[in-house]
Amino acid sequence: MNETGKKAVVLVSGGLDSATVLAVAREQGFACHALTIQYGQRHAAEIAAARRVASALGAVRHVVSDIDLRAFGGSALTADIAVPKGRSMDEISHGIPITYVPARNTIFLAFALAWAEALGARDIFIGVNAVDYSGYPDCRPEYIAAFERMANLATKAGVEGDTRFSIRTPLIAMTKAEIIRLGVKLGLDYGLTVSCYDPGANGEACGTCDACILRRKGFAEAGLRDPARYVAAALTP
Amino acid sequence: MNETGKKAVVLVSGGLDSATVLAVAREQGFACHALTIQYGQRHAAEIAAARRVASALGAVRHVVSDIDLRAFGGSALTADIAVPKGRSMDEISHGIPITYVPARNTIFLAFALAWAEALGARDIFIGVNAVDYSGYPDCRPEYIAAFERMANLATKAGVEGDTRFSIRTPLIAMTKAEIIRLGVKLGLDYGLTVSCYDPGANGEACGTCDACILRRKGFAEAGLRDPARYVAAALTP
Repeated sequence: MNETGKKAVVLVSGGLDSATVLAVAREQGFACHALTIQYGQRHAAEIAAARRVASALGAVRHVVSDIDLRAFGGSALTADIAVPKGRSMDEISHGIPITYVPARNTIFLAFALAWAEALGARDIFIGVNAVDYSGYPDCRPEYIAAFERMANLATKAGVEGDTRFSIRTPLIAMTKAEIIRLGVKLGLDYGLTVSCYDPGANGEACGTCDACILRRKGFAEAGLRDPARYVAAALTP
Repeated sequence: MNETGKKAVVLVSGGLDSATVLAVAREQGFACHALTIQYGQRHAAEIAAARRVASALGAVRHVVSDIDLRAFGGSALTADIAVPKGRSMDEISHGIPITYVPARNTIFLAFALAWAEALGARDIFIGVNAVDYSGYPDCRPEYIAAFERMANLATKAGVEGDTRFSIRTPLIAMTKAEIIRLGVKLGLDYGLTVSCYDPGANGEACGTCDACILRRKGFAEAGLRDPARYVAAALTP
């Protein structure tokens, strides 16, 4: 990692997409400051994955910020609502899923903006994707553009007119298969990442939640082997 | 408090302005859900004040969310930098003070948005003020408008086209004296509130930080007695 490069804050969740984003930011020569938000999700496996990813990709620093969205409720990822399983691609692609977390990316980007301003960084990377979009409003390009505009009014940088903040979304128009091919080309080991919304006690991915279905489809379409460990039942046709 | 009224989320810090906003929201008939963000500030006196204010004004619910902005640094309110004292009104009114917390209102509003969406509330109240502005970029009307626009793209409400979110800033164009007169008219006891950035061990306000200076000037201009307790030295002419 280039410690003397231009600083960037990179949101790293421990999943496949954000690990690829970190690899892209590193490739572009940024001194990457990895930020993971632990938001009361029901398992900590992805935090452990985020630590592995940040370390393997040489982040200059990795901060894990704890916030508690459970007090607000409203999502299968933060409240006691079952994660849906075995949905078809048609079901996954339409409507807003129950795993939607209200204002999640807005909170994540707000924290990233705070750190970026304190660091003097002007580039914030986030692994949102509008193709395998799955109905999340806060993954759309028009949302990202509106956040960027707001960020430049919210901050000293905006008032004092120095270089503007950029919200960088290198994956926003890519299919999952394209993302995986890009990461592999950049030398990323996807065995470090965790995508599953509902992993088993030993950390195996369930194979049947929306995130697992999108990941498995991506590897299949890329013609590559998925190094994730799945529960045996998920692999039975 | 009208528990069956239209729900609103009201950001309550424990200070004079946000207490007035809560009184305004109550007066307008909202079922108020008070939200306090504890962000690693150096004293907890304002959290205690927020609890008193939410309780006295009959909030339906009060959530205190802990976040840690100290990991990011960059402000006298979150890092080990001395709070400035005894500045003139000219110094207070110009430039961005060292007590500026990077992206603070963006983080606060992002949490309020998450809770509002989970509750089904569409109104978010915040006590920003662009008159006694003190150089904070995230108190300006153009910032609030940009946040509101972003919020309506970030959320299910934006995608599904139901009622839009409103960020309500009833104090934004008022002087401190006008705010105080409004609160007194609504029956608010400002003795419940804490404004000081640097209170003493017994909770007395220092009287000389920017927040104390603005508050004392406001009460003086309103021709009202400030019920806050100040350290004796602050009251010597």
